[in-house]
Amino acid sequence: MTASPDSADLREDSVGIVGVGLIGGSIAAALKARGYAGTIIGSGRDRSRLEAAREAGLLDEFTTDPPHASLVVVCTPVDRIAQDVRLAAAAASPGTLITDAGSVKGSIRRELDGAMPEGVAFIGAHPLAGSEKQGFEHASADLFVDALCVVVPSDEASLAHRKAGEPRPMRVVSADEGDPAQALARAERFWHSLGARTLRMTADEHDRSLARTSHLPHVAAAALVASLGASDFPFAATGFRDTTRIASGDPDLWTAILLANARPALDAIDTFRDRLDEFRTAIAAGQGGAVKKLLAQSKARRDEEPGRRP
Amino acid sequence: MTASPDSADLREDSVGIVGVGLIGGSIAAALKARGYAGTIIGSGRDRSRLEAAREAGLLDEFTTDPPHASLVVVCTPVDRIAQDVRLAAAAASPGTLITDAGSVKGSIRRELDGAMPEGVAFIGAHPLAGSEKQGFEHASADLFVDALCVVVPSDEASLAHRKAGEPRPMRVVSADEGDPAQALARAERFWHSLGARTLRMTADEHDRSLARTSHLPHVAAAALVASLGASDFPFAATGFRDTTRIASGDPDLWTAILLANARPALDAIDTFRDRLDEFRTAIAAGQGGAVKKLLAQSKARRDEEPGRRP
Repeated sequence: MTASPDSADLREDSVGIVGVGLIGGSIAAALKARGYAGTIIGSGRDRSRLEAAREAGLLDEFTTDPPHASLVVVCTPVDRIAQDVRLAAAAASPGTLITDAGSVKGSIRRELDGAMPEGVAFIGAHPLAGSEKQGFEHASADLFVDALCVVVPSDEASLAHRKAGEPRPMRVVSADEGDPAQALARAERFWHSLGARTLRMTADEHDRSLARTSHLPHVAAAALVASLGASDFPFAATGFRDTTRIASGDPDLWTAILLANARPALDAIDTFRDRLDEFRTAIAAGQGGAVKKLLAQSKARRDEEPGRRP
Repeated sequence: MTASPDSADLREDSVGIVGVGLIGGSIAAALKARGYAGTIIGSGRDRSRLEAAREAGLLDEFTTDPPHASLVVVCTPVDRIAQDVRLAAAAASPGTLITDAGSVKGSIRRELDGAMPEGVAFIGAHPLAGSEKQGFEHASADLFVDALCVVVPSDEASLAHRKAGEPRPMRVVSADEGDPAQALARAERFWHSLGARTLRMTADEHDRSLARTSHLPHVAAAALVASLGASDFPFAATGFRDTTRIASGDPDLWTAILLANARPALDAIDTFRDRLDEFRTAIAAGQGGAVKKLLAQSKARRDEEPGRRP
């Protein structure tokens, strides 16, 4: 992890953004706000939306074709990312770096393995930032400031320096480690320039952790809402509203995420069911000591750990 | 439901509060702020805490015995309420009304059935207001403003006017309906004077709804936290934090609630498991349409219903 430089220091002539929604729009807003001097090119399917994003000052240019830029970031839903990366790669000049912002990394990586043309690199990324809101109208130049962005090296060698017992793979790479490492460092510089912190992980490590910390809570929130009868809702107070807020997320986006990360998501659901069963067993047996112990363990972890910086 | 009068209109010479924590302290603060002219008497086990609450301006008097007051509200944890109501009733003069603020109503009602001395009435209540914080230092005079307070009539007759198809029992009672109804109306006036809206339900109806809207989400939040590995926590972003916030609640209080409401809580957990299994099955089968339908149903209910006024 390194300190975040401004986008003014970003050595990319142009940045292409495929999918100018909340995330893509916030990337554009961050680049503008942090002094990026190159050209920002928006790409998407809806010309009128792109026109509006340019008028809002987020884009310098736009196209309904794949963007031609030195760095391209693909911000479409997870089930379209691999295809959009392929299209961007096919249109790219040698030396182009492509990254993305998808919530699932393994399925994208498997689809793209060996698919990059000579001289074009893809480094998968996932900035842990977002909102239930959608559309560039809700874009924020600060969305990525101090947010964690996972980057997935294209070669496992970039993770090989991990020490035993180190909780997470994490290492800053200098520019002289060969091509894959150079592409990785370049992708990291891009995300740093938006204010994010970066962390290197394999795609599988990422997907397993996100299944437990993001995809499982989404399913649990939706299942909690579905557990209520219509007459229960007047009693759904603050606790219920907080617990189920994420159930308001976009069903299309979340369906794509859950299917793209099905195996880790199912494993997380099974683990959760086991934990739930522990509570069920203790309550059914009237074992106050066991119930309290389970609650106290979760309280201690909840009070201590989330948001802990890696 | 009626408009909330000020506490200045409350026709009680004195209010005794057993357990001067967040809820009891907030009742005292609301009475003071809303112009109650009678005497507020705090009761509890820890003299120094009561002394401090008096110095903070919440209490006029305090005692480590049961309070002697025209209206007594018991705000101790659910596993102590029945006993504290008995003690207050034994010390009470005829004409005293006792109410409470417990999150579970059936077990308390069963323990107190037939236990009230002649001339002393008990009307169970549950104001749906609170906080993860504890202690009168976090008391708020506005805690009950516009909050829903369930009141449990001591006779089912008070619920008999319910129309078929009416989603919830709810009816304003005039003062001429005999003693149980008078006690009920008097309890309602008390909670109204703090700014709350009241709703009449049977203890069992209350307990089943609260199991689904409050006790189940608490167990789910704790089980979600327990599903994470230590290395997952850096990835626990906003969604996870919101979803598991209530897991920070006090383990003693929540153990008492879950055990006092065990049967409805277990039923709610089983319903939740069934809903979770629907998601699991659809994800495992790769059925995008089914996953999306489940997510969309929950989103629609979540966006529309919680906080809907009964």
